Amino acid sequence: MTGNTFGSIFKLTTFGESHGLAIGGVIDGCPAGIKINLDAIQKDLDRRKPGQSSIVTQRKEPDEVTLFSGIFEGKTTGTPIGFAIQNTNQKSKDYSHIKNTFRPSHADYVYEEKYGIRDYRGGGRSSARETASRVVAGSIAKQFLAPITINAYVSAVGTLSLDLHPSKVDVLEAEKNIVRCPDSKLASEMESLIKKVRKEGDTVGGVVTCIIKNIPVGLGEPSFDKLHAELGKGMLSINAVKGFEYGSGFSGTKMKGSEHNDLFNPDGTTQTNHSGGIQGGISNGMDIYFNVAFKPVATIMQNQETINSQREKVAMQGKGRHDPCVVPRAVPIVESMAALVLADFHLRKRNNRI
Amino acid sequence: MTGNTFGSIFKLTTFGESHGLAIGGVIDGCPAGIKINLDAIQKDLDRRKPGQSSIVTQRKEPDEVTLFSGIFEGKTTGTPIGFAIQNTNQKSKDYSHIKNTFRPSHADYVYEEKYGIRDYRGGGRSSARETASRVVAGSIAKQFLAPITINAYVSAVGTLSLDLHPSKVDVLEAEKNIVRCPDSKLASEMESLIKKVRKEGDTVGGVVTCIIKNIPVGLGEPSFDKLHAELGKGMLSINAVKGFEYGSGFSGTKMKGSEHNDLFNPDGTTQTNHSGGIQGGISNGMDIYFNVAFKPVATIMQNQETINSQREKVAMQGKGRHDPCVVPRAVPIVESMAALVLADFHLRKRNNRI
Amino acid sequence: MTGNTFGSIFKLTTFGESHGLAIGGVIDGCPAGIKINLDAIQKDLDRRKPGQSSIVTQRKEPDEVTLFSGIFEGKTTGTPIGFAIQNTNQKSKDYSHIKNTFRPSHADYVYEEKYGIRDYRGGGRSSARETASRVVAGSIAKQFLAPITINAYVSAVGTLSLDLHPSKVDVLEAEKNIVRCPDSKLASEMESLIKKVRKEGDTVGGVVTCIIKNIPVGLGEPSFDKLHAELGKGMLSINAVKGFEYGSGFSGTKMKGSEHNDLFNPDGTTQTNHSGGIQGGISNGMDIYFNVAFKPVATIMQNQETINSQREKVAMQGKGRHDPCVVPRAVPIVESMAALVLADFHLRKRNNRI
Amino acid sequence: MTGNTFGSIFKLTTFGESHGLAIGGVIDGCPAGIKINLDAIQKDLDRRKPGQSSIVTQRKEPDEVTLFSGIFEGKTTGTPIGFAIQNTNQKSKDYSHIKNTFRPSHADYVYEEKYGIRDYRGGGRSSARETASRVVAGSIAKQFLAPITINAYVSAVGTLSLDLHPSKVDVLEAEKNIVRCPDSKLASEMESLIKKVRKEGDTVGGVVTCIIKNIPVGLGEPSFDKLHAELGKGMLSINAVKGFEYGSGFSGTKMKGSEHNDLFNPDGTTQTNHSGGIQGGISNGMDIYFNVAFKPVATIMQNQETINSQREKVAMQGKGRHDPCVVPRAVPIVESMAALVLADFHLRKRNNRI
Repeated sequence: MTGNTFGSIFKLTTFGESHGLAIGGVIDGCPAGIKINLDAIQKDLDRRKPGQSSIVTQRKEPDEVTLFSGIFEGKTTGTPIGFAIQNTNQKSKDYSHIKNTFRPSHADYVYEEKYGIRDYRGGGRSSARETASRVVAGSIAKQFLAPITINAYVSAVGTLSLDLHPSKVDVLEAEKNIVRCPDSKLASEMESLIKKVRKEGDTVGGVVTCIIKNIPVGLGEPSFDKLHAELGKGMLSINAVKGFEYGSGFSGTKMKGSEHNDLFNPDGTTQTNHSGGIQGGISNGMDIYFNVAFKPVATIMQNQETINSQREKVAMQGKGRHDPCVVPRAVPIVESMAALVLADFHLRKRNNRI
Repeated sequence: MTGNTFGSIFKLTTFGESHGLAIGGVIDGCPAGIKINLDAIQKDLDRRKPGQSSIVTQRKEPDEVTLFSGIFEGKTTGTPIGFAIQNTNQKSKDYSHIKNTFRPSHADYVYEEKYGIRDYRGGGRSSARETASRVVAGSIAKQFLAPITINAYVSAVGTLSLDLHPSKVDVLEAEKNIVRCPDSKLASEMESLIKKVRKEGDTVGGVVTCIIKNIPVGLGEPSFDKLHAELGKGMLSINAVKGFEYGSGFSGTKMKGSEHNDLFNPDGTTQTNHSGGIQGGISNGMDIYFNVAFKPVATIMQNQETINSQREKVAMQGKGRHDPCVVPRAVPIVESMAALVLADFHLRKRNNRI
Repeated sequence: MTGNTFGSIFKLTTFGESHGLAIGGVIDGCPAGIKINLDAIQKDLDRRKPGQSSIVTQRKEPDEVTLFSGIFEGKTTGTPIGFAIQNTNQKSKDYSHIKNTFRPSHADYVYEEKYGIRDYRGGGRSSARETASRVVAGSIAKQFLAPITINAYVSAVGTLSLDLHPSKVDVLEAEKNIVRCPDSKLASEMESLIKKVRKEGDTVGGVVTCIIKNIPVGLGEPSFDKLHAELGKGMLSINAVKGFEYGSGFSGTKMKGSEHNDLFNPDGTTQTNHSGGIQGGISNGMDIYFNVAFKPVATIMQNQETINSQREKVAMQGKGRHDPCVVPRAVPIVESMAALVLADFHLRKRNNRI
Repeated sequence: MTGNTFGSIFKLTTFGESHGLAIGGVIDGCPAGIKINLDAIQKDLDRRKPGQSSIVTQRKEPDEVTLFSGIFEGKTTGTPIGFAIQNTNQKSKDYSHIKNTFRPSHADYVYEEKYGIRDYRGGGRSSARETASRVVAGSIAKQFLAPITINAYVSAVGTLSLDLHPSKVDVLEAEKNIVRCPDSKLASEMESLIKKVRKEGDTVGGVVTCIIKNIPVGLGEPSFDKLHAELGKGMLSINAVKGFEYGSGFSGTKMKGSEHNDLFNPDGTTQTNHSGGIQGGISNGMDIYFNVAFKPVATIMQNQETINSQREKVAMQGKGRHDPCVVPRAVPIVESMAALVLADFHLRKRNNRI
């Protein structure tokens, strides 16, 4: 069984390789009657698209989506929403050098071993280009979920890290700079760092934090499909992600129960929120927040030794136009995966009671 | 759609509340022809069971499993394996005090809000007792997966942390002490710490690390069901887990691409393994390793203020017999969830090629 | 992927072989808050059980179900309902003669070829005993679905056939005789026929008809999961079923559109109901009715030539206690599968609109 | 949960309304390494397309498919195959008369009630145009399944019925006439009948029979996903289908066990094949054959009384270009659904044994 579908009721199935005719997908299970704002979808795509600023890859692709079905007179009809984004900038010759060569810390080798065949151009199916389809679906999910708000931002680039609790962050600030860090001073340092590593032909990792507000109580399903388990899966399914923690996360392991427990207020809210808005896998109405760790991009503009399909050592140098740091463009992807998870649980919750 | 099933081809569905007649489940999709060692199943259950040592809950439950079906003359038949574990130690009166009270940082409140009804005894469905069913299935999955080895161990309790790369750990050492930490000196310090917090009526968190060896190339499915995404989901679905990271994890976000990339050897192995044995969501044959963060147990033996179902403030004190630190008993659960993930991908891989 | 689960939101997973320790299952996705009448479940099991009358198999099995979980203080809690029925009458020696022999028109041969191993006792997993688990779940589904009514009855045994439109049948009459045919005179003829074929050591087929009333508009999902497609699948999954037709069925193929079309009344009901209560795969509120064809039971008390596992011709004679005609006992099974389909669509419908 | 996906490992998800931009789908789970013959796909689409002969609807649509992904250098890569067929002949004005009117025995009324909104043009999602996507996927499935052969043909139109066992039919004859009946004389009578009913502004039903050869033993999964249960579901999911029977079908209910049982030959084949190639839900290697009942098309060119969305009686006359009998165009659709079922079970079978 392949893994190209995400969600159980609100479902996204994606297709497409980086340099094929198009990428796209089918959103199935979206309820009827949602007013769709097409501009909002395009705006989210623009936040993800290459070439948007001086610190991301300089490839130019308009990433305009065509919606084939499922929307009639501006509203969803409850039928599947098929869509595609043309691949307009397929400089396939850029990739002839990797036809028979496995790039270090890329998926070339494992695809070849797994399938015996691969579309090597631009990484093919393993390219992060696939995430554009997630943004289309995530943007529709956000429109379904309103007034729930889902905002991600960059909280670390390399060793530069934001020290502010997510519930206190002004998320609108993040969109005011090209790094998408809500602290403008830190953002400026991060920008300098990213430019420096790019100049060195290198790349650097980072962290995206996401904060979700106005959540109803009751999202998430015992016992395997806990809300944070699906959020974790969704985030870990994004290219280059190495870790996920929510609420107190890894730092919570160092605490005692008497410190960590969130005492109730009479209205059911809690005085602290170490739990990150989730108890027993189910939302408790408090803010949900989590961190997503992104490794440094594997394509670097330096000489590296690697092997080819004949298992011979070969020298290679990264070519093409790539991101020196992936987190600024990852922000809308993190939001989209969160939106898909919440939309799904929102619908699943309808079946809890008679 | 409920979330009581894990896996897509090798599937476990669990049922059962802490203080009902029994817990249990159905393992479906287990291939025919596997020789089943019943003692190995019981041994894994014993590693998880309450009362096994002086640093875990002193409840006594034998946790003996009855297998109803799916095994004939010592071998699996390809039909579903139904099983149950009787709940023999249901001191239900212990829980009358929480019938109408919501314990802080427990699932009482969210279950009540979600379902409008809950079996409050011992946490009901939200009790970690459910994980015994996972261990039964995980133990069978391990037998299917041999010679793949899956070993978890305690790498941190509170601020006491093991500083040794997982690939260098002697996993057999971990089973020689009651903490299940492979460094006997550190284990002894951890034991002291756990006893100290218990004496204070408190609890403490920790980290379990897992290392998987002898993995074939090709496990994991693009693009949503990446191997580490399913591992992450599996781990995050375990009670009290707050975070998951694999390979370089959160520390990898601070590295540069030139440091992080794993260069190939001619045989397809890599010189370093920051990737944690997974590229593009697919196993590359190197060791898989990951960390799982557990929060401190929420039930403490101290006075806490909380609310009842009438939204009134009430005082409560933890009663019953509980774990001061969950990680020693969590070790076989982590292994079991890893085994379920791998068994599923092992079968899914069979469908990759014509 | 195995096929032991039925339904997508209201789901039944069954386990168990005819002569193992127990059969049973897990009902998952049953909403919280349903009052459960245990007697009603047992009553449906009694309608299916062996030994209930002079025209069915004379095996005696009490078929009492134990519910392990998911019900608290008489109501469903929204958590999975695990259950088992002990196999108390496992005369395994009766089946030693088929250990290495493939009975004609049974599943022995295909199980052996498919799995390489089989529990040959009493047909193992392929035994119709598995349907007792369906009746448990179906009975709970019926309680959820009230006031929808689901009634099946025997409409044909061999060439003896009831000529009355299902909407005009008095379904209560069917339960007044052991054949479960609502026409008492015809029932008596059918009883004689069944006794005659049994005396000949032979068996005979038949038809079960089902009629469903008080159905809301809107059950069923385009485009693959049409209401009648899932009903058809559910019925065809019952042992010995060879065909399914709903509404005008096969006889409708001979009609013209002008005769077949159901004209509307102003209230949305229709003047005729050739459609069988379903349009475009979705219930329209009219009665749903369908026919299910059962072949003659393959186990006959006559000498037959067959082959053994060494592919040698061998003579065999049917042994054990078997049904001369399966349809009287199939009535509650047909109702149960219909209830499972409707319960699932009832929940799925909740997600159609914003 | 919506129902726009068919299959569990080899999966088709379709999207699209009759008069939207395009219909299409995603084929997921198709193994890597299959050589794809694009002409064969188009040929199957041509067998289904409108305007192909004098006895089908005279709408003209080229129905050319664009494959977006999943095929590289002529072979499948194991990644999802996205595809679309433009809707080029969207005479939407033809349908303004049904914007507020519910056509008898169509899905207009139930869609309106279920979703509160519908794309009324040409039936929207309920249009049989959706089946073109099934033919694309089915044609690819056939290429995967070779040398298994799947051939459907028209065996009845109204009361004109072919009296020949499917295993004796020369399936190539069926494609030599526009009715697709393998008996040329009967085909000619059927053609006359279809033309006659069309002249009367009427329509007529019919039966499509399908015969599958060169089947391996072991396809189909106990206990709910029996091979014939999935075939039945697949066929019943096709627009206008009212019934399904396989092997001896409804006529088998009149037989005795001693007549119906298929005695084995020493090589595992059987002397008769009343079972229709399936025992206990699993293929036994003999020919699989089944009948599919199609009702008369509901759109007739006669005056009919009906109701509008205000629940008022209104007169309506069928407009547009419609089929007087659907079975000739249904032949490739039946084959396609059979191919999808078999491709799925072919992959599922790989997981039966260790």
